[in-house]
Amino acid sequence: MDGLRELTRDKDLGALRNWLGEHGTLDIAEGLTRVPPAERAIAFRLLAKDRALAVFEALEPLYQQELLDGLRDAQVRSLVEEMEPDDRVRLFDEMPATVVTRIQAGLSPSEREATASLLGYPTESAGRVMTPSFVSVRSSMTAADALSKVRRADVDPAVLHVLPVTDDQRRLKGMVDLRHLVSAPSSTRIGDLVGGEVYSVTAGTDQEEAARLMRTADLVELPVVDAEDRLLGVITVDDAMRVLDEEMTEDLARTGGSEPLGRPYLGSSAFHLARKRAVWLLLLGVAAVLTVNVLAAFEGTLESVVALALFIPLLIDTGGNSGSQAATVVIRAMSVGEVRFRDLPTVVWREARVGFMLGLMLAVVAFPAVWLFFDVQFATIIASTIAVICLWASFVGGLLPMLAQRVGIDPAVVSAPLITTLIDATGLILYFMIAMAVLGL
Amino acid sequence: MDGLRELTRDKDLGALRNWLGEHGTLDIAEGLTRVPPAERAIAFRLLAKDRALAVFEALEPLYQQELLDGLRDAQVRSLVEEMEPDDRVRLFDEMPATVVTRIQAGLSPSEREATASLLGYPTESAGRVMTPSFVSVRSSMTAADALSKVRRADVDPAVLHVLPVTDDQRRLKGMVDLRHLVSAPSSTRIGDLVGGEVYSVTAGTDQEEAARLMRTADLVELPVVDAEDRLLGVITVDDAMRVLDEEMTEDLARTGGSEPLGRPYLGSSAFHLARKRAVWLLLLGVAAVLTVNVLAAFEGTLESVVALALFIPLLIDTGGNSGSQAATVVIRAMSVGEVRFRDLPTVVWREARVGFMLGLMLAVVAFPAVWLFFDVQFATIIASTIAVICLWASFVGGLLPMLAQRVGIDPAVVSAPLITTLIDATGLILYFMIAMAVLGL
Repeated sequence: MDGLRELTRDKDLGALRNWLGEHGTLDIAEGLTRVPPAERAIAFRLLAKDRALAVFEALEPLYQQELLDGLRDAQVRSLVEEMEPDDRVRLFDEMPATVVTRIQAGLSPSEREATASLLGYPTESAGRVMTPSFVSVRSSMTAADALSKVRRADVDPAVLHVLPVTDDQRRLKGMVDLRHLVSAPSSTRIGDLVGGEVYSVTAGTDQEEAARLMRTADLVELPVVDAEDRLLGVITVDDAMRVLDEEMTEDLARTGGSEPLGRPYLGSSAFHLARKRAVWLLLLGVAAVLTVNVLAAFEGTLESVVALALFIPLLIDTGGNSGSQAATVVIRAMSVGEVRFRDLPTVVWREARVGFMLGLMLAVVAFPAVWLFFDVQFATIIASTIAVICLWASFVGGLLPMLAQRVGIDPAVVSAPLITTLIDATGLILYFMIAMAVLGL
Repeated sequence: MDGLRELTRDKDLGALRNWLGEHGTLDIAEGLTRVPPAERAIAFRLLAKDRALAVFEALEPLYQQELLDGLRDAQVRSLVEEMEPDDRVRLFDEMPATVVTRIQAGLSPSEREATASLLGYPTESAGRVMTPSFVSVRSSMTAADALSKVRRADVDPAVLHVLPVTDDQRRLKGMVDLRHLVSAPSSTRIGDLVGGEVYSVTAGTDQEEAARLMRTADLVELPVVDAEDRLLGVITVDDAMRVLDEEMTEDLARTGGSEPLGRPYLGSSAFHLARKRAVWLLLLGVAAVLTVNVLAAFEGTLESVVALALFIPLLIDTGGNSGSQAATVVIRAMSVGEVRFRDLPTVVWREARVGFMLGLMLAVVAFPAVWLFFDVQFATIIASTIAVICLWASFVGGLLPMLAQRVGIDPAVVSAPLITTLIDATGLILYFMIAMAVLGL
């Protein structure tokens, strides 16, 4: 925000203290990300303890880690000790193993154990994002017993809104809403308050699948169980939102033809950005060599009718656009779980019809325009190539992401840029074949 | 799901009833979307009343509306009466005004009024997605009073997890967690339980901004107020997740160069899909005419060195990829609120450096390869064009989305396809100027 960066640079502590007093937690957190890493601790140390913790928790793990580098060991230990176990695991993922070990050693035994248990689950799994600090109730308890357990609990209030209900073997039986506990006569058995469907995931479930289930079933809390249906932890809705947000950021990066950054944009150096893009740019460049080969094969035709070259960018752009229109929509429908592999025939048939309609439309527009500026033969070539390319691109754009997902590749990876390159090469072949046929070469 | 479609088509009611008994709400809802609209009511009518309501609520508004068409008036009235006011408003948005009026007339006065008040707010505003059915407590109440108000409340349990606290003029003073009400001594004043920062939005706030605030501040409920800070309703976290999901679907569609569908993919006819893509495809096609003009201007050069044409697709693809890598990442950083307009210099300078590094890398790879198959002059032309185009594309890809947002255009609209077309034309000019300089034409 205006000023924090300048005030920190000038080390004007009085003015800094005023600024911090006048701004909210989120503003302070956002302001800190714009202060050079080495100077962030200057402003941070001026915050009262509670405020400091709130600001720290509002920061992305990358910034948390950078900030800790500038703080004294005692302050580091107290901040990390106060974090929720799942947030602490996210922070640890950003840190070198030696630093993690040192910090872990400074935690209280219960917090250390909570974190260690989460670190045992694979990255991006439900086990990794759940919190082991929750309160569950047994179905044999009374409402009064359950409420008194809630009153005694020392956990994040968010995990107390809906409580997992288990049997005496810790197996999940359902959920009970705190609101129903409050209203029920105190001798009611918890088992009688459990209603509706029971949703849960195992610890190995992909985090995106768990988050997507919470979104679809409107859950504020999702229990995570082991293979014997015993309760291990709960995922809260704020983590589900974050997971969906992160997955979306990844999808969008891949759609744009690069690897996900894995960190905030402003927290990424130019070198980090370049590294995440280099591989794809190089691969796509190598794939595009195919287009050079195709054109080289038709060099004779090009030499005799140089004007054919004029339309190459227009035709491949149109094919690329049509393909990426299809691909992005199909990819999104798959990632929200709407379209599944068994819908392949529906999708492909629909995309083919869409491509046909769009191709026909563009051909009708292109024919008179090209006739006017060139001749009727050229108009025929361009209009029919556009029609065929649109149909082909839309078909491929719908088909490839579905096939990719089937064989375990993220559909977003085969999206726009990769499909575009493929369509470019095949589109050029179609173009020259149509041209040679019409021109009688 | 396997079977529901076939069982419905065959009108095998016994088998249908079995299938419905064996599947959960979400499976049934998903299965119904794959049954042709006219036959959905057959399966739906077999569900018990509670089950039917749950399945109905799990459907997207488009499918809800199609389903209602096949049901009798009495059933329509009872389903719509049971919906939450904000869900009802989403359904009404899909329906012709005459049908809405008829259904509204059949509702109980309180439900009719709740819906009418929401319909008064602009589309996509916080007022439109909030629910007016909530429970608030006054800061002068005791914890016992507040709990007894919660016990008597007849609303969705989700709005009772955190309660808005107001003064005697209904002005928002903060929030109190039900968990703290439960633990507090019964004579505690509510005012003393309110802590932390107060987040709220006005009814006219954009729904995405409200949802983004809930995501950033980890809120499960966000109060909506009028200009005098008086409480109007609350937005629950499930609606925030839906809003972010929908906005993301829109962003992705625009990134792929089409208008958002505004409905599920499988619920869209081929004609609807084509209509949403036609305008952009046509516009981009017209913009691509620029590339024809550029090439026509250099036709003489092309005629004397036809081999220059061979690299046109490779060069414009590389430029397009580099530009869309930059654009998608910057667009995403803007839409999650990380990058703001004041970051423009940082972003542009960073993207220029990234483009320079990537361009240099590709040039180093391209130079020997082109030399091997062509000659050193060609290698010089291609390598330097690639370097310049990458730098230029990355710069434009970072700059344009930020400028677009500044003048009120959705940045996703100027993303990949539009930037690609622009970069194609300018890239070709650079290519021919470099070629003419190197070849001494």
